[in-house]
Amino acid sequence: MAVGPGTIGELHPVDGVRIGIASAGIKKPGRKDVVVFELAEGSRSAGVFTKNAFCAAPVTVAKAHLAKASPRYWLINTGNANAGTGEQGLSDARRCCAALADLTGLEAPTVLPFSTGVIGEPLPTDKIVSALPGALGALSVDSWLDAASGIMTTDTRPKACSQQLQWQGKTITVTGISKGAGMIKPNMATMLGYVATDADVDQALLQSLVSEAAEQSFNRITVDGDTSTNDACMLVATGRSGVSVSAGSELEGLLRQTINAVFLDLAQAIVRDGEGATKFVAVAVKGAQDQQEALKVAYTVAESPLVKTALFASDPNWGRILAAIGRAGVDGLDVAKVSVHLDDVLIAERGGRAASYTEEAGAAVMKQEDVTIAIDLGRGEAGETVWTTDFSYDYVRINAEYRS
Amino acid sequence: MAVGPGTIGELHPVDGVRIGIASAGIKKPGRKDVVVFELAEGSRSAGVFTKNAFCAAPVTVAKAHLAKASPRYWLINTGNANAGTGEQGLSDARRCCAALADLTGLEAPTVLPFSTGVIGEPLPTDKIVSALPGALGALSVDSWLDAASGIMTTDTRPKACSQQLQWQGKTITVTGISKGAGMIKPNMATMLGYVATDADVDQALLQSLVSEAAEQSFNRITVDGDTSTNDACMLVATGRSGVSVSAGSELEGLLRQTINAVFLDLAQAIVRDGEGATKFVAVAVKGAQDQQEALKVAYTVAESPLVKTALFASDPNWGRILAAIGRAGVDGLDVAKVSVHLDDVLIAERGGRAASYTEEAGAAVMKQEDVTIAIDLGRGEAGETVWTTDFSYDYVRINAEYRS
Repeated sequence: MAVGPGTIGELHPVDGVRIGIASAGIKKPGRKDVVVFELAEGSRSAGVFTKNAFCAAPVTVAKAHLAKASPRYWLINTGNANAGTGEQGLSDARRCCAALADLTGLEAPTVLPFSTGVIGEPLPTDKIVSALPGALGALSVDSWLDAASGIMTTDTRPKACSQQLQWQGKTITVTGISKGAGMIKPNMATMLGYVATDADVDQALLQSLVSEAAEQSFNRITVDGDTSTNDACMLVATGRSGVSVSAGSELEGLLRQTINAVFLDLAQAIVRDGEGATKFVAVAVKGAQDQQEALKVAYTVAESPLVKTALFASDPNWGRILAAIGRAGVDGLDVAKVSVHLDDVLIAERGGRAASYTEEAGAAVMKQEDVTIAIDLGRGEAGETVWTTDFSYDYVRINAEYRS
Repeated sequence: MAVGPGTIGELHPVDGVRIGIASAGIKKPGRKDVVVFELAEGSRSAGVFTKNAFCAAPVTVAKAHLAKASPRYWLINTGNANAGTGEQGLSDARRCCAALADLTGLEAPTVLPFSTGVIGEPLPTDKIVSALPGALGALSVDSWLDAASGIMTTDTRPKACSQQLQWQGKTITVTGISKGAGMIKPNMATMLGYVATDADVDQALLQSLVSEAAEQSFNRITVDGDTSTNDACMLVATGRSGVSVSAGSELEGLLRQTINAVFLDLAQAIVRDGEGATKFVAVAVKGAQDQQEALKVAYTVAESPLVKTALFASDPNWGRILAAIGRAGVDGLDVAKVSVHLDDVLIAERGGRAASYTEEAGAAVMKQEDVTIAIDLGRGEAGETVWTTDFSYDYVRINAEYRS
């Protein structure tokens, strides 16, 4: 199940990026499970990665390669996360990179590896290496949607977004894909996002763009509060549009907006496809003393199993929302100043139910697929929004049956 | 569903404590939902209460009354939590206390109110006040088990424990009851625990006893990570055994052990009866730099929806345990030094699956109702254990249907 239509608009190719997809039979025979991004010479890549201490082998190798060389290939497999695999996992990730480098006449550090799927099983490197010639043979500028399908695991639908920006008669394109449905509480990145632009952007600005965009998109979503071992989000700038973007320019502001919008679309698509999701929920906190406080309250509400099961039941059980706010660890919170809205319906204020509130009004909002829980802490000027889902029978089923 | 037989041994009366139960029809007609504890003159009471900022009205009133007078009555209702009820809730809690004081010729502050049930609905004080004469008429020293039933909400079975201690030919008794199945992550107490002893203990020592006992029992359990607005745990010492216990004595050590054992039994009974629980799980962390670090890791694992659904499926998905440890926020964690056992089966070490591990050995442990996840962080001497349950379809059902 997923929330909303999941419509994907036209996916504009990005000059300098070709994508090849192949089937290596990693988990299921015939499934497209290997995706290769080819990045034109002169492209720059920047990324953000999981902060999980048990980060997966490909994350470690990708960070090391990124420090050594300018990436020319991103190699992604689904069906196996190559996480919790110790030294063997590192060697397996390196072997896949070396094999792709051999086939293309490059050095291994120009290849960045990414894996997603089950944790703790050895990566079937032979199968992946055997699939590489087919993926290279299939390279095309038009394969964004196929790539979005090729990196899915428990996702029920592909996630992709494309936007264009006009500047002095030229066009800059930003196109990206993402995946993820469970083990979703990205910390500095999510599993997985790949975005490309044909703008010409220097390395420092590129890193700033990807960091800011990930911070306000992938780092503001949670399905189950579990940070993945494999989160990674990459942004490449090929420069092929011929438009150079310098830091501090008006154009930089426009490009930043466009990239942020693409990232946010990709991140919200992950929430809408959250495991077992029947609701898409924004938790918007304002009136906090600082951003950390706002985030703490927003995540405590967004991850409360009691709030999430009430959402699943379309039950405006605002007492559970108050209880979650109350345990969020805000020092000296004055509950008399806290108010809570469901969309535009005031449900609680002054420590209790709002006088104007009726169960009917609350229930009407809760019946919707898209719901905003708006919380005003009444103690400052800071605010933050995070996006999440409800908790359903299907969430339990999907995660109880995942390895069976 | 609940885990284990739930056997309750003999419940020894505590001299100086009588209990009366009545039916006020708060949520369901005919349900025993009002419990009155009568404490003999000269008894001392100490308690610990929820740290939730949205604490319920009875918690606020109980704390205020406790500061003013020595409690002679504990008045407990189920079916309505009187939480999120603002000023009206405070006034309702006070009115119930005043009514009981009127009937017994005492002052209102000698009555401590406690409520459990649905949050955010006005307390039906008329119904409760009408039931008080019946409860007083039923006062008896033998009603502990009935009281344990009388304070249940989504609990499927009563929770009670009794132990005795012999000292120089005299007997000291410690008997208690608890309730709770969901919204369970007590913070300094749980909803609800009532323990009595006939030892003679001064107020300072009594507070120390209840604080320590709650800290290592109710404050070490979690069902869903949601701290209740109504948590309260009380310990009364009536002195009627004629045995005086002074701080620092050998007898104090023995009494402390007995009280701790009763508290731990009552707390673990809550986990075994956790909403939808099919497993009773200890998460034991050692090798931490300090207790806070050990608790952080233990709770992150115990509250991970992915770990909990794997437990429900009896799936030894140790990768999810590693991922939870990795996101617990331990600075500079060296994953190469971390090891994880399921009971006595080593499942992971050096950042990956243990060489000796087989899925069969892991699956054999996971099939049990009682499982210990033992984690060694390999960086210090501190350790902590918390107890939790799995996440099942029934958890979702119970919490989605709670108000319907």
